[in-house]
Amino acid sequence: MTQPTVAQYALARLAQLGIDRIFGVPGDYAFAIDDAAEQVPGLSWVACANELNASYAADGYARVRGAAMLSTTYGVGELSAINGVMGCKAHRVPVFHLVGMPSERIQRLGLVTHHNLGDTVYDRFQAISGAACCVSAVLDPDNCIDEMERVIREALRQSMPAYIVISEVHGGMPVVGQPVKGKPLAEIKRQRSVDVELDAAVETILSRLAAARKPVAVVTALVARYGLRDQAMEFIRKSNLPVVIMPNDKGTIDEAMQQYSGLYAGGWSSSQEVCDFVRDADLLLDIGGMVLTELNTGLWTDMPNADRVISIQDNWVKAGSKVFLNAAIDDVLAVLVKKVPTRKESGALNVEKFPLAGAASDKLSSTSFYPRLQRRLRKGDTVVVETGTCMTHLNKMLLPEGVTAEGQGLWGSIGWGTPACLGVAMGKQSGRTWLVTGDGSHQLTLNEIGVMGRYGIKPVIFVLNNGIYGVEDVISERGHAYDDLAPVNYHLLPQAFGCKGWLIAKVETVADLDAVLEKIESHPGACYVEVMIPNEESQPLPGSVIDSGYKLRTPKAG
Amino acid sequence: MTQPTVAQYALARLAQLGIDRIFGVPGDYAFAIDDAAEQVPGLSWVACANELNASYAADGYARVRGAAMLSTTYGVGELSAINGVMGCKAHRVPVFHLVGMPSERIQRLGLVTHHNLGDTVYDRFQAISGAACCVSAVLDPDNCIDEMERVIREALRQSMPAYIVISEVHGGMPVVGQPVKGKPLAEIKRQRSVDVELDAAVETILSRLAAARKPVAVVTALVARYGLRDQAMEFIRKSNLPVVIMPNDKGTIDEAMQQYSGLYAGGWSSSQEVCDFVRDADLLLDIGGMVLTELNTGLWTDMPNADRVISIQDNWVKAGSKVFLNAAIDDVLAVLVKKVPTRKESGALNVEKFPLAGAASDKLSSTSFYPRLQRRLRKGDTVVVETGTCMTHLNKMLLPEGVTAEGQGLWGSIGWGTPACLGVAMGKQSGRTWLVTGDGSHQLTLNEIGVMGRYGIKPVIFVLNNGIYGVEDVISERGHAYDDLAPVNYHLLPQAFGCKGWLIAKVETVADLDAVLEKIESHPGACYVEVMIPNEESQPLPGSVIDSGYKLRTPKAG
Repeated sequence: MTQPTVAQYALARLAQLGIDRIFGVPGDYAFAIDDAAEQVPGLSWVACANELNASYAADGYARVRGAAMLSTTYGVGELSAINGVMGCKAHRVPVFHLVGMPSERIQRLGLVTHHNLGDTVYDRFQAISGAACCVSAVLDPDNCIDEMERVIREALRQSMPAYIVISEVHGGMPVVGQPVKGKPLAEIKRQRSVDVELDAAVETILSRLAAARKPVAVVTALVARYGLRDQAMEFIRKSNLPVVIMPNDKGTIDEAMQQYSGLYAGGWSSSQEVCDFVRDADLLLDIGGMVLTELNTGLWTDMPNADRVISIQDNWVKAGSKVFLNAAIDDVLAVLVKKVPTRKESGALNVEKFPLAGAASDKLSSTSFYPRLQRRLRKGDTVVVETGTCMTHLNKMLLPEGVTAEGQGLWGSIGWGTPACLGVAMGKQSGRTWLVTGDGSHQLTLNEIGVMGRYGIKPVIFVLNNGIYGVEDVISERGHAYDDLAPVNYHLLPQAFGCKGWLIAKVETVADLDAVLEKIESHPGACYVEVMIPNEESQPLPGSVIDSGYKLRTPKAG
Repeated sequence: MTQPTVAQYALARLAQLGIDRIFGVPGDYAFAIDDAAEQVPGLSWVACANELNASYAADGYARVRGAAMLSTTYGVGELSAINGVMGCKAHRVPVFHLVGMPSERIQRLGLVTHHNLGDTVYDRFQAISGAACCVSAVLDPDNCIDEMERVIREALRQSMPAYIVISEVHGGMPVVGQPVKGKPLAEIKRQRSVDVELDAAVETILSRLAAARKPVAVVTALVARYGLRDQAMEFIRKSNLPVVIMPNDKGTIDEAMQQYSGLYAGGWSSSQEVCDFVRDADLLLDIGGMVLTELNTGLWTDMPNADRVISIQDNWVKAGSKVFLNAAIDDVLAVLVKKVPTRKESGALNVEKFPLAGAASDKLSSTSFYPRLQRRLRKGDTVVVETGTCMTHLNKMLLPEGVTAEGQGLWGSIGWGTPACLGVAMGKQSGRTWLVTGDGSHQLTLNEIGVMGRYGIKPVIFVLNNGIYGVEDVISERGHAYDDLAPVNYHLLPQAFGCKGWLIAKVETVADLDAVLEKIESHPGACYVEVMIPNEESQPLPGSVIDSGYKLRTPKAG
């Protein structure tokens, strides 16, 4: 067989991980990559509406498949994607960002090109795009094979994005050397432990567990990033420890587990009972690394005292003042599952579904909407949770057996949900993909609806229309005109975007919602529901998430 | 009166330049800025659909008003805007990018916040956003007054964007010190000359002009950035030099001037006559600094020999091997206008309108569309030119007296045109704003249509629908699936976005177009026309703009 080109090799090598789509926007300088996307067997191009949307879609896909490919062009394209790639870095999602560059022929001739500042500085954007990644490489035929091994190993080891630059002309040249045949992601050992550190870490965890009277486990999304969902749940079942999750990590574990005890977020927990339960625990076993943002801790209330926390991070463990290095999370879990004794009583809290509320003729509200949505979810479904007021409700929702969720609570870039929904739906082999988004978030990226229609994916989308940036209206202390939105008729968008066979509805009452939820059960295509629902948060959040307003914030003396 | 807050002072100080709008997306961390936008007299908030759109809109507004304000939030917001701000740097547009940040109280307490990577590095994004600007500042009550003077002076001197960070809590504190009362932009001396260099530069220009047999002037967009359109045209009239413009600079001068001789772009000039005219010139007086990109030079053909070029740059002049420093372009033009003799014969070329073509029943094509558009333009109109195949036609179009145009040929970020049209329309005091965009570009940013409708601006928009990325289909050598677009029904979008009182049409034939152009003349509101028109570029561009395709590019021996 003929030697692959640099672009073909890079894409084929990544495809061997199990990636079968590449999200992006085509463009001059990147055509070698775009061509390769058509040439590499088993790989197909997804033409997103713009580069930011493509980065969000790649994020969603990678959360399902473990990794993803994103392709943009030089300067204009890669910079449009950087917010989404940085979000992947925050949420530890390995997305391989492949970017075109003017050819070395043009560079050697010192010619001025478009997509630049009118000078002959050709590498201007590499530091910028690279800042959103944990590893970068500029490929050429000579270094391509070695560099791809380095980039893949490091991106998977750290579970973060990688930045790969391929010039137009080098992208079309054959690689020099012997191509490497890679393994699927699931078969790759991503981090390796130093035995003495690993043993010491596990011994410490087991002895602290044995001594604990009221231990509670916390599982975070990092275990999903490393493909360890099942191992983490196996440990929970074997140890019979009660387990809570935090808002950023919603959907990481199966909430039908007997040990599941609810959502913990300090003062914003799903109930005071959960808050007290965690507060009273004498050992918090943190599997994956709790991220102590305001959202995850109820404005930094109930910050867990370090002495009662053991954190199992990606490749290190912290127990009080002890830090064990090079103890890989998969190795730690494997040994723990073998050695941990099973507690007689988990002491887990009972978690209930939201109570059904609202009469048929009532206007919709959160108390009527979310319980009905909750009762329609079933095994294999994934709920994409957009940032905003809907997130606070969805995070507290008990998910049925086998239902997962994906959100972006840490990075919190509004607009993420709609393209992420596209990526999740394309990544899943089976099961439905639900999206719940506010109108404020949806408007940023709604042009991705046309892409969903074009590729025939079948999400179930709820756009909650209250005409304002709901959460910002709360935080900014209500009623500012800058929180108002354009009066978009969301239910008219799918047709305008050329979507065929979609179930489209606009609902205002409980009866409307019940009717459309019933139709959704049997509808073979995508569903798009505009939900007229008021913003109910009537008071600013306690203290306000972002230290808003000088007057409120002036420190009191004494 | 009470002392203004840091955010109020920053916005009010910028408003004194003559800026009456602030484009952006509100967000936590930025509420002190958002609040100030409501509080500063004479300033109003424009809530764009997303941050990239807001940056494009600010660009368009600044091209009309000379400067603009853009506000985004920390991390997620500012990174989404960076492509548009970098485009402003490339095109020398002073946009003041005001960004929120977590309060110093949060920082001093070392709390982990959202919109970050889960750590306590709070200044992570400053180097990234700052790279798109020529000057940066982090304001606090103590440094605010001094820093604003420095930032404004430098942004205007270099005519480039500025990055201004204001934390939530500092933004709400009163400034310390005596507020400065600023002057309107038009009254500000932006660059200052060193007399001896200025005199030497002007003497060299005058003596070279006197010696030249066939001199030709080129005027670039930089003169517009420094508010020197009229001075440049006064110099052309006084000197009676024939003048050409290059694609990146379309619309900078009045093309009804007797001296106007057409569009020069090497092998892509508006005619072979123009190409020969400039090639045969023994002196090219470049006013503003020609940017020798492939687009401006017909793939670097006919690169002007440095010996026959004098370039008047923003604050330096190059004549062959001589460089004169600190000779400000406004000072150079002022002295030249005084001293330059008037040539008897300009020797200008005659430039004709596009010939009218196409019968009423014909399907639309470039030969029938552009001549009809051209005949509807009138004094005071501005044409916003999106990047793509439409740009090559619009650049060659002779603009009627008093018609200007704005494009982004150097940075060339597709999608710029639609939000830029919003900004241009909001910046203009009178006259219509026309937008011509391809569908490939429009899809990236079409959610800004809802913003246009909400604020009641009245552009005339033509979306050329050929179902593909036209120019990319050409460059990538035709027929790649990745150049295909989602089948959007563009004419259905304005209603979906809630636009009221818009004239909406879909045209396929010459008769359709004639009818809608007639309606546009009397329609009081915005107009949105979907134009069904094929991609006519049947051959790859000579050589291809971006050195595409390894096979084509293999150097021939000998």
